Amino acid sequence: MSQLDDLLRDLVVANRILSNEDVVDAYGHISVRHPDNPKHFFMSRSLAPELVQRNDLIEFDQAGEPVKDQRQPYLERFIHAAIFEARPDVTAVVHAHAEDTLPFGLIKTPLQPVIHSGSFIGGKVPVWDIRKKFGDTNLLVTNMAQGRDLAKSLGKGSVALMRGHGFASAARSIIEVVRLSVYLPRNARVQMNAMRMGGKPKPLSKGEIAARTASYSKPHSHETWRAWEYWATRAGCADMIGKPHDHATKS
Amino acid sequence: MSQLDDLLRDLVVANRILSNEDVVDAYGHISVRHPDNPKHFFMSRSLAPELVQRNDLIEFDQAGEPVKDQRQPYLERFIHAAIFEARPDVTAVVHAHAEDTLPFGLIKTPLQPVIHSGSFIGGKVPVWDIRKKFGDTNLLVTNMAQGRDLAKSLGKGSVALMRGHGFASAARSIIEVVRLSVYLPRNARVQMNAMRMGGKPKPLSKGEIAARTASYSKPHSHETWRAWEYWATRAGCADMIGKPHDHATKS
Amino acid sequence: MSQLDDLLRDLVVANRILSNEDVVDAYGHISVRHPDNPKHFFMSRSLAPELVQRNDLIEFDQAGEPVKDQRQPYLERFIHAAIFEARPDVTAVVHAHAEDTLPFGLIKTPLQPVIHSGSFIGGKVPVWDIRKKFGDTNLLVTNMAQGRDLAKSLGKGSVALMRGHGFASAARSIIEVVRLSVYLPRNARVQMNAMRMGGKPKPLSKGEIAARTASYSKPHSHETWRAWEYWATRAGCADMIGKPHDHATKS
Amino acid sequence: MSQLDDLLRDLVVANRILSNEDVVDAYGHISVRHPDNPKHFFMSRSLAPELVQRNDLIEFDQAGEPVKDQRQPYLERFIHAAIFEARPDVTAVVHAHAEDTLPFGLIKTPLQPVIHSGSFIGGKVPVWDIRKKFGDTNLLVTNMAQGRDLAKSLGKGSVALMRGHGFASAARSIIEVVRLSVYLPRNARVQMNAMRMGGKPKPLSKGEIAARTASYSKPHSHETWRAWEYWATRAGCADMIGKPHDHATKS
Repeated sequence: MSQLDDLLRDLVVANRILSNEDVVDAYGHISVRHPDNPKHFFMSRSLAPELVQRNDLIEFDQAGEPVKDQRQPYLERFIHAAIFEARPDVTAVVHAHAEDTLPFGLIKTPLQPVIHSGSFIGGKVPVWDIRKKFGDTNLLVTNMAQGRDLAKSLGKGSVALMRGHGFASAARSIIEVVRLSVYLPRNARVQMNAMRMGGKPKPLSKGEIAARTASYSKPHSHETWRAWEYWATRAGCADMIGKPHDHATKS
Repeated sequence: MSQLDDLLRDLVVANRILSNEDVVDAYGHISVRHPDNPKHFFMSRSLAPELVQRNDLIEFDQAGEPVKDQRQPYLERFIHAAIFEARPDVTAVVHAHAEDTLPFGLIKTPLQPVIHSGSFIGGKVPVWDIRKKFGDTNLLVTNMAQGRDLAKSLGKGSVALMRGHGFASAARSIIEVVRLSVYLPRNARVQMNAMRMGGKPKPLSKGEIAARTASYSKPHSHETWRAWEYWATRAGCADMIGKPHDHATKS
Repeated sequence: MSQLDDLLRDLVVANRILSNEDVVDAYGHISVRHPDNPKHFFMSRSLAPELVQRNDLIEFDQAGEPVKDQRQPYLERFIHAAIFEARPDVTAVVHAHAEDTLPFGLIKTPLQPVIHSGSFIGGKVPVWDIRKKFGDTNLLVTNMAQGRDLAKSLGKGSVALMRGHGFASAARSIIEVVRLSVYLPRNARVQMNAMRMGGKPKPLSKGEIAARTASYSKPHSHETWRAWEYWATRAGCADMIGKPHDHATKS
Repeated sequence: MSQLDDLLRDLVVANRILSNEDVVDAYGHISVRHPDNPKHFFMSRSLAPELVQRNDLIEFDQAGEPVKDQRQPYLERFIHAAIFEARPDVTAVVHAHAEDTLPFGLIKTPLQPVIHSGSFIGGKVPVWDIRKKFGDTNLLVTNMAQGRDLAKSLGKGSVALMRGHGFASAARSIIEVVRLSVYLPRNARVQMNAMRMGGKPKPLSKGEIAARTASYSKPHSHETWRAWEYWATRAGCADMIGKPHDHATKS
């Protein structure tokens, strides 16, 4: 298969995993940058991620509009378009409402990495509040101006919380943005539980976060593949994941 | 199929979804107003919602009594009768005991919308205490006087908590009352978790709640249908939901 | 079938329900008094409740010893023997370690009914501490002296917590002791969640508890059967439950 | 079958149980000491525990390196090698990241036995912080020096928490290290929930912990086998567990 074929196959698998791991429900979406046309990206038509199949994937342009496709797109496709525009280093983007990330969008204490699998968050997570610049909205990111403001809050980081709504995460590969998005709510729960017992939980140090990033320099290491295979098996699509070497060529 | 056929089919699906999404267990019920006789409504006979089939549905009159049906009705059918009486704008009603809504019936801090999917709650949720007017009861709403007192507490809103018991929710369509009832416990959990970390969680503003209501002006939008299809699939009755246009005619 | 046949069939179903509803895991047990010989009772041999079948049931005498059966009994059968001895009004007993009841065995605030489905707890739940009378033990109730001390703590009530261990509950029928045991952890979670948000959660009044008990005067009412049918369906043994009238003769 | 055959079969079952009981996900591992060569041990190649089969098991030497096997081993195999080296009494070791143990690695209040099934923890659980001796790392135990430092923190105990990462547990048999690892997160949750309601939860006394250890002097008692059979059934591998007497010869 071509690299594009591999990526679209992985995008379907990623949809199923994110649903099965409770990161998304009927809402939330994942996209991947077009490997041959970096201004474009792929994402499902408006459909619950659990139900996404290969022919549900649509190509979008840099303005977040479908390229030759009349089917209903997700309202918030501009989150993806704006992050791909601002971040050439990013290949895959997730937007979701994972329940246990939401409390940190409502309070002053920042979400931050407290467990090793949460290191990919990168540090204290910014909270973007759409109300600050756009006043009273329906909280959805429905145009490029809003998407760009969110991307600005994300900055060079890998995740931004969205007050009263959810989060946007970004990484250099599909596997990595899935891993980040699966462990983000877990890190949030551990931090919440530690905080509630009193005292200030000990976060990962900057040096530790850097050491972890360095040790995962290849996106398709044995360790990362192990999780991909496990999550895909649980989501009922182990037959679709291919072999590690199909992915290795992409890193 | 006729509009009535569509509605009764949707009512069966709604029973299964509410059970599968943990809003109801053996107890709790959902009703829909009769489309041709607005003083009447339909609801299952006394049966766990997960087990409800088409022939379990009974027509009830405005006093909450079964019309030509000898089977055992739910004891608390008066919740539905009284809300349909007081609220001509309402087409569907849910009564349930979803666990994570219950703590807010016992304390002074009100449940309120803190996440966008919780906006349909509408604002601070009133707590109806049956003891205030009716003294020591078994807490069940077993006559029209109690039902009307609860409906008064609901007022023009979409949900009222019932102290030590559960909640009643109301909307202009089956899909919408299901969505409201599924996201109500999630909003409650997020608010609880934020409160426990200290400080006061930031609620949605009145303007945001209004903007969300305005942007969901059609009950069968693509976005709402996406959830209906997802929940029905999870509940094992995707084959029963029909097509969006069957529903669109009802809005 | 004879009443004994009905009861033993129900006891198998109850084992499966308690396991499926997370009241017991590999540990915990349920017993029923012998209908024709009130000094004896039936309970499974030492086996995880999920796996219990009809031929695993053993008859026990008033000292908690198996009658003509060489198979390994549960170590803690004396909980059942002692409660049956002390309480002629009791027909069925459960001992379990349901996780969310355990915190209330470790602190000073008592567990008490805060939701209507928790009314069957009856009031503030006593905490029995085996250490008080028996010093340092392995915490298990392994003889009649310990069982009788626990039964004394239970008194005329329907449930006693056991510090650092679990609870014992008692009722006049299998269905009722199952319902009590399923809703006990739910009541505990609601009380915990309300307490954590600050303030003192409003409990059910004595009058409300009495009114609820009065309104459930028949153990096999439509409302209770609805739950039994639902739980048995979820536990995969709906085919074993018989018809309501099989049970009604027992009340 | 030989004792080695039995042990390797049990090791496969243990992998599946630990996954199904949420102790491990894609990460975490369990090992068993070689019965004929106590300096060596067996553990799976780098693979999610849920997927482990007999031919995935690799023999490791005392330095934590695979013996005649080219397949990718777990990065953290040194946890196992170092504990087997320091503790001749230990036959089986688990390393995992069970979510609800993690908060206790971040705060000052120690995790300790508060429920009878948690007695096998042994007492206040030490927290090993890799940063103390090795500075900023990726938090993984990737060499014998780190493994030995962790083993030193474990001392003569049965479990050590690892700050921001997980835990290591050790016991004299596979069944016992599984039981310890399954009940550890439960004990943690009960302690957290009790602490959050205010006051200091009452822990098990030293005498109680000793009494429990004494009463479980045989690793394959009826009571322990009951749990093994139950967990294996839930994990879908009841057909693999053999009979109790296969195991009894090992104790």
